[in-house]
Amino acid sequence: MKLILKKIKSEGIASLSYFLASGNEACVVDPRRDAKTFLKLAWDAEADLKYVFETHRNEDYVIGSREIADVTNVEIYHGPGLDWKYGNTLKDGQEFNLGVLKVKAIHTPGHTDESTSYAVYDTSTGIEAVMVFTGDALFVGDTGRIDMYGPQLSEKNATNLYNSIFNKLIPLGDQCIILPAHGAGSVCGAEINERELSTIGLERMQNHALQLKDKNNFVQFKLSEHHYYAPYFKKMEEYNLNGPPLLKDVPRFKPLLPGKFKKQLEEGAIVVDTRNPTSFGSAHIKGSYNIWLKGLPSHAGWILPYDKPLLLVVENFTNLKKVYKYLLRVGYDNIKGYLVGGIVAWYSNHFPTETIGTITVDALKRKLDNKEDIFLIDVRSPPELKEGYIEHAKNIYVGEIQDKIEEIPKNVPIVTVCGNGARASMAASILKKHGFESMNVLGSMKAWYKANYPIVK
Amino acid sequence: MKLILKKIKSEGIASLSYFLASGNEACVVDPRRDAKTFLKLAWDAEADLKYVFETHRNEDYVIGSREIADVTNVEIYHGPGLDWKYGNTLKDGQEFNLGVLKVKAIHTPGHTDESTSYAVYDTSTGIEAVMVFTGDALFVGDTGRIDMYGPQLSEKNATNLYNSIFNKLIPLGDQCIILPAHGAGSVCGAEINERELSTIGLERMQNHALQLKDKNNFVQFKLSEHHYYAPYFKKMEEYNLNGPPLLKDVPRFKPLLPGKFKKQLEEGAIVVDTRNPTSFGSAHIKGSYNIWLKGLPSHAGWILPYDKPLLLVVENFTNLKKVYKYLLRVGYDNIKGYLVGGIVAWYSNHFPTETIGTITVDALKRKLDNKEDIFLIDVRSPPELKEGYIEHAKNIYVGEIQDKIEEIPKNVPIVTVCGNGARASMAASILKKHGFESMNVLGSMKAWYKANYPIVK
Amino acid sequence: MKLILKKIKSEGIASLSYFLASGNEACVVDPRRDAKTFLKLAWDAEADLKYVFETHRNEDYVIGSREIADVTNVEIYHGPGLDWKYGNTLKDGQEFNLGVLKVKAIHTPGHTDESTSYAVYDTSTGIEAVMVFTGDALFVGDTGRIDMYGPQLSEKNATNLYNSIFNKLIPLGDQCIILPAHGAGSVCGAEINERELSTIGLERMQNHALQLKDKNNFVQFKLSEHHYYAPYFKKMEEYNLNGPPLLKDVPRFKPLLPGKFKKQLEEGAIVVDTRNPTSFGSAHIKGSYNIWLKGLPSHAGWILPYDKPLLLVVENFTNLKKVYKYLLRVGYDNIKGYLVGGIVAWYSNHFPTETIGTITVDALKRKLDNKEDIFLIDVRSPPELKEGYIEHAKNIYVGEIQDKIEEIPKNVPIVTVCGNGARASMAASILKKHGFESMNVLGSMKAWYKANYPIVK
Amino acid sequence: MKLILKKIKSEGIASLSYFLASGNEACVVDPRRDAKTFLKLAWDAEADLKYVFETHRNEDYVIGSREIADVTNVEIYHGPGLDWKYGNTLKDGQEFNLGVLKVKAIHTPGHTDESTSYAVYDTSTGIEAVMVFTGDALFVGDTGRIDMYGPQLSEKNATNLYNSIFNKLIPLGDQCIILPAHGAGSVCGAEINERELSTIGLERMQNHALQLKDKNNFVQFKLSEHHYYAPYFKKMEEYNLNGPPLLKDVPRFKPLLPGKFKKQLEEGAIVVDTRNPTSFGSAHIKGSYNIWLKGLPSHAGWILPYDKPLLLVVENFTNLKKVYKYLLRVGYDNIKGYLVGGIVAWYSNHFPTETIGTITVDALKRKLDNKEDIFLIDVRSPPELKEGYIEHAKNIYVGEIQDKIEEIPKNVPIVTVCGNGARASMAASILKKHGFESMNVLGSMKAWYKANYPIVK
Repeated sequence: MKLILKKIKSEGIASLSYFLASGNEACVVDPRRDAKTFLKLAWDAEADLKYVFETHRNEDYVIGSREIADVTNVEIYHGPGLDWKYGNTLKDGQEFNLGVLKVKAIHTPGHTDESTSYAVYDTSTGIEAVMVFTGDALFVGDTGRIDMYGPQLSEKNATNLYNSIFNKLIPLGDQCIILPAHGAGSVCGAEINERELSTIGLERMQNHALQLKDKNNFVQFKLSEHHYYAPYFKKMEEYNLNGPPLLKDVPRFKPLLPGKFKKQLEEGAIVVDTRNPTSFGSAHIKGSYNIWLKGLPSHAGWILPYDKPLLLVVENFTNLKKVYKYLLRVGYDNIKGYLVGGIVAWYSNHFPTETIGTITVDALKRKLDNKEDIFLIDVRSPPELKEGYIEHAKNIYVGEIQDKIEEIPKNVPIVTVCGNGARASMAASILKKHGFESMNVLGSMKAWYKANYPIVK
Repeated sequence: MKLILKKIKSEGIASLSYFLASGNEACVVDPRRDAKTFLKLAWDAEADLKYVFETHRNEDYVIGSREIADVTNVEIYHGPGLDWKYGNTLKDGQEFNLGVLKVKAIHTPGHTDESTSYAVYDTSTGIEAVMVFTGDALFVGDTGRIDMYGPQLSEKNATNLYNSIFNKLIPLGDQCIILPAHGAGSVCGAEINERELSTIGLERMQNHALQLKDKNNFVQFKLSEHHYYAPYFKKMEEYNLNGPPLLKDVPRFKPLLPGKFKKQLEEGAIVVDTRNPTSFGSAHIKGSYNIWLKGLPSHAGWILPYDKPLLLVVENFTNLKKVYKYLLRVGYDNIKGYLVGGIVAWYSNHFPTETIGTITVDALKRKLDNKEDIFLIDVRSPPELKEGYIEHAKNIYVGEIQDKIEEIPKNVPIVTVCGNGARASMAASILKKHGFESMNVLGSMKAWYKANYPIVK
Repeated sequence: MKLILKKIKSEGIASLSYFLASGNEACVVDPRRDAKTFLKLAWDAEADLKYVFETHRNEDYVIGSREIADVTNVEIYHGPGLDWKYGNTLKDGQEFNLGVLKVKAIHTPGHTDESTSYAVYDTSTGIEAVMVFTGDALFVGDTGRIDMYGPQLSEKNATNLYNSIFNKLIPLGDQCIILPAHGAGSVCGAEINERELSTIGLERMQNHALQLKDKNNFVQFKLSEHHYYAPYFKKMEEYNLNGPPLLKDVPRFKPLLPGKFKKQLEEGAIVVDTRNPTSFGSAHIKGSYNIWLKGLPSHAGWILPYDKPLLLVVENFTNLKKVYKYLLRVGYDNIKGYLVGGIVAWYSNHFPTETIGTITVDALKRKLDNKEDIFLIDVRSPPELKEGYIEHAKNIYVGEIQDKIEEIPKNVPIVTVCGNGARASMAASILKKHGFESMNVLGSMKAWYKANYPIVK
Repeated sequence: MKLILKKIKSEGIASLSYFLASGNEACVVDPRRDAKTFLKLAWDAEADLKYVFETHRNEDYVIGSREIADVTNVEIYHGPGLDWKYGNTLKDGQEFNLGVLKVKAIHTPGHTDESTSYAVYDTSTGIEAVMVFTGDALFVGDTGRIDMYGPQLSEKNATNLYNSIFNKLIPLGDQCIILPAHGAGSVCGAEINERELSTIGLERMQNHALQLKDKNNFVQFKLSEHHYYAPYFKKMEEYNLNGPPLLKDVPRFKPLLPGKFKKQLEEGAIVVDTRNPTSFGSAHIKGSYNIWLKGLPSHAGWILPYDKPLLLVVENFTNLKKVYKYLLRVGYDNIKGYLVGGIVAWYSNHFPTETIGTITVDALKRKLDNKEDIFLIDVRSPPELKEGYIEHAKNIYVGEIQDKIEEIPKNVPIVTVCGNGARASMAASILKKHGFESMNVLGSMKAWYKANYPIVK
């Protein structure tokens, strides 16, 4: 009997949805908001979509369960412990049939209270679990963050997670393939491996946290981790608890010639410019945020408001659809339009542009050696700084620049660095928007390391 | 560091090729002949193709290693024991670096002498094997056939296979993901599971053959299996040992209006008609072979000659590219063209057609009950007959009908059945070509079972 | 300044929509219902959609003007003389600017009262008309039908058409390119040329009707033409006057496994089977209509009810999207689903099928020569019969078979012929549905002519 | 009978190829080098490719006739007067049948001696010409350049052109649709209209040159026109006379990581950087040529050598295929590879970059008002300067900068302007490569005009 498993990765937030079909029955695990993908898969598999299983109330993207339910008779299932406004609440141990497969819900709290894993058994071959959808409990190379409820509850969460992993997941056996809710690059786990392919056995043997077999050690380790809580998580949590608006009700955005674009801008819309740092630096519309394309899903939610309309400037119009999807996935439904002809049309129309300087690491080195009057900000997250940072650099995470704007000196040029320049340009655009003279370092720390310039660890 | 694993399945023969990239380095395992796929994957991954690893001299399709080597600097590796005319011969235990991964060749003879598996280790996470490309040694739910060298050597092969699996693969550990060379539907293993996702642990626990831990039992079990040896295997083996012709040197096929098509036919070309049995039965060109589209890769090699040009009749022109690919994958490089306008153009031109009757299972039941003078052939393979067959049905495997044509009585209508009618129609077309009056049963045994008509087991 | 003209042809009904952009402004003429095409074109052209121009209330398909207006600020314009429930009513001679172009509405009644042409002038090059959208007034090689209001008004319409063509369109000058609302294959003009590229000059010189320069001759000629009035025209007229439902509100259809399909069938849904006549003949679900894929847009409206749900059986699942579009374009919004696995799944499930015999023209000839008891129906339209028909064949147009079912004798096998067999199979399926024993001739009259069998003219 | 006409436009050089099919026969007029398009069209049309008609030895791109002949039995036809090394030479008046169409070659010298037009008649509708492929004799709004053989022969050419247009093309009649070899943007005619749709009548009435009915006036007008002769024309002429290499023999280019890219560079390869001026200005590899994507087909041939390997830097990897095609179309077959990871990978690797400053028109105005020491070059072609230029700007056409490098003062910043900045950036990159300090004006003259700054006419 046919068995199909497809992993659908949403770039940027690195969230993983799964489609699983056996015979003529299919389910989806953690569907993303643009959910036609899953309907198409069911169609190709000639299967009925019977279930949507959610591993938890995802906080980093809008869940697509209702999108699927809008066009099929699918049953939606969530874990216990939240007052869900749609779908069904599961019981620990509840079982479902899907063709020759048996799907068993395993309550695995820790990341959040309702977190649930789904073990899959192939009744045609044996009794041992074949695979398990682990949600945010167990990743390839990492474990779920336990700080979502604030510091007071972190220890309780860490303890829950320990129990979930050691007493519920590991017992499934080394042979069992794990299918987590996130891959590398997600904010839900800083150390997630790029491999995206693992088993309970591999994690038991190679996952750093799982080597800490003592519960106390494990909890202490989890408490020592550092994670950011992006402002947009609140919006996602609210959406995913109550059911987000359906995409068919989201208005379409429009092409806007420079004049009309300018008018929207003057009425308070916010410009998101997804061009490369080099392009953006040379010429951009005053007040624009520069968020590189692939960074949009993960970084938009840190700085873009939900209560103002958005306007788009892109390098390449073939990317527009992607930009649109990326923003919808994190709930930005109020996109007014995009600049027809791009920035060239804008400045060719004699509309004003601004610049942000770019400098090489060599020039930065000289400035530092010469003790020129600059203020250097490293916008990476603390774990990244472990690789080494430039002496005297001030660390402010890119997502927090806007909140910590008061900590930054006026009247001195600000130089921003990050991993390879994308977030530094984003930071520079935020600073520029707030009236600072900012400058972005080409290649950032990647080039600095390559140049073998001195670092502090 | 980026890690990408892609499985590329060639439908019909169910052969699996793999693309694996770590950082900027990539390899391909068992590439199929139409190999642009792999170049495209390397391109997307921004990686250099360093290695092609072959698990064995595949006997059921043309290997694409030389296609890749023709446009890149890739190194090709085969297992030891054959006099390869291209590429490099490996040593057991030879290791390769691929980004953070280590690939280790493990000589695993049994299916064939040169059969080699490739274990993959992630040096960034631990020392246990992460995955292993098992070739035709170990499948999901099955093990490789050991009859390729003929009955005298089967026992030796089976013993080798036992050693390879129990002493080389199982020791990799339960946690290790297996990536075999074939999925369900392949002629290389009758019981391969549809799941296409497994681990050493799952196979150790659930694979029937692996429960036979005693070497003798294992060997006896393997010797008791039944497999067919398709005539085209010889051609593939020769191709894959010496290096097949490059696709860029294969002449393109052409659209042929009915008149030109007829001319080619009269000059000795063979017609392959890939339409559905119902369409084919109603009207087809005299002497056509009816092989359904998805059956082409696995069944063409049983009956189509390599030394005559082929002509195509298709239901739908969007399928032509697929037909072409399917035939190239098994080495039919001499395709002259296809019938423009399909069978409708043919008969609208007042060119003659023939028919093959179709009957329902109910009608067949009545004929049998009334003891009408028909000769019933079940063209399935012996393992399939275990599900039950119709009393008095003669079993001749579809691939052998042409060879056993003398065993079939003339002067009596022949009725063919198979699983659901596709192979029965193929068989009926072969019989018709040889002058028999043949008839195909709609739905074949699938419908017969549904109807609850009596069967013999 | 950029100027883009795109012709969008809807297959089957051969209706032509146009997209025209100059600079950053664009218009659409006679948009079809699935109107995303036009938004995409405007997007690519970096242009604002300013206008939708309708040449008349199209009666053979659902107009897409409201679809466009739903997502843009486009202005819709119709010709004078109808009580339009949406959009704006034009005045004869009204002018519009579109970049460097001037678009001038020219009231050209005749086909219908509100029929309007749109002449386009390029103000950057000269004062002579560059092109004219002629709607159903003037086609390549034909003129619009004048029988839409019934026989009493046909003469008035023909006179109007004469005036529109000779006094309004021809004066635009020989140089002017014509862009009509239909191409060859449309029911709106039997003699439309396949060329799809013409000028006022070419039509003035080569169009048969335009050689009849005397008004009386012209009117008599038009009155002598024969056209069918398809039952679905009424529905289209109503839709297009009042504004059809938006596609986003049309429910999606679903994959249905044989059991669920059968249930829907038993509850009164109608089966549309778009397979080839040969496939359909061999096995189909009782009561199915057989309409070949390309014939769907033009022939569905003759026989399918609007008040019952539809079910689909297709040869090839890649065609489903097309089937869906074709039916939506003529207003069939109530499609329940399609048969998963096609007819093979149906009969493999031991659900009953029916057959319709197919015979060759040779067999038909023999039957006729032997004076066998058959009733031969030629289902082509009268103009087609001019090429010659088989002696004693009764002519009933395929679209009227259902209405004239009483004229057909029971108790005698019915043989149907048409051009090349597609409509004959459709007719045979209608007859079968009504209890007749019907038979379809492979290749129909095309094969008969090729065979040089006797015909009557 | 089916009739299909497709126009295939090659962007950048604005060359037009045509595919024409009637019934089951097809021809191609002036095929471009990447000729699979035409095979695909023939395939879709279910037609045999009978003829390739060339209107002249195209000098601005590689002709694809041999590509088509390599895979079909097509006959290639050229006009008389050249010693063609492949295909057949036509006679004036030679006729060809194509389904119901008649194609008549009309020798129309003027642009070049062998120039030939092809009039098309529809024998099913009348005797007047339906359309004519006019090659480079007559464009929409323009006529072919007559300076290809140098000044001594221009008058003779102009006279020939007059005769060809007035005595051979205009007599075809106002009704006749014209299908020229180039659209707007081609170097083969400076005033070609964007409309791409015209008739003999429209040109007779609205084409400026055709109003000059006196032969002398016409000749004088043609002699007064200004055209550039790009260096690559010679290569194209040689290719198209002798038959260019087949694409299947052109080596594929490869992804190159920064290190390998640098190595190629050091061995003498030339870098073509197709990014936007803003991106390029901020950071680029020393010695790169900046040619914007759409400008590649028309501008590459001015500055890129044929005897050195090329390396590519692109903004977006989805554009690579386009870059490749554009370069192949003008004969650059020696492309080594592209920079994996783009310029970001380069500078992140701590490889050195250079910058070119960008300034706004406001800043330029201030510099000019302040009489700062800059040297302003307007790189547009003379006809463009008629719209107005900045006082004291020196005019050197972008294609000639490299040749006139001696005329440019060292030791003073060079500021380049063009229409909207693309060619100015190309010019700035050439200057930079030659050691000048160059600067590019954002929005160039387009912004200058918008700003209403003073111009000289």
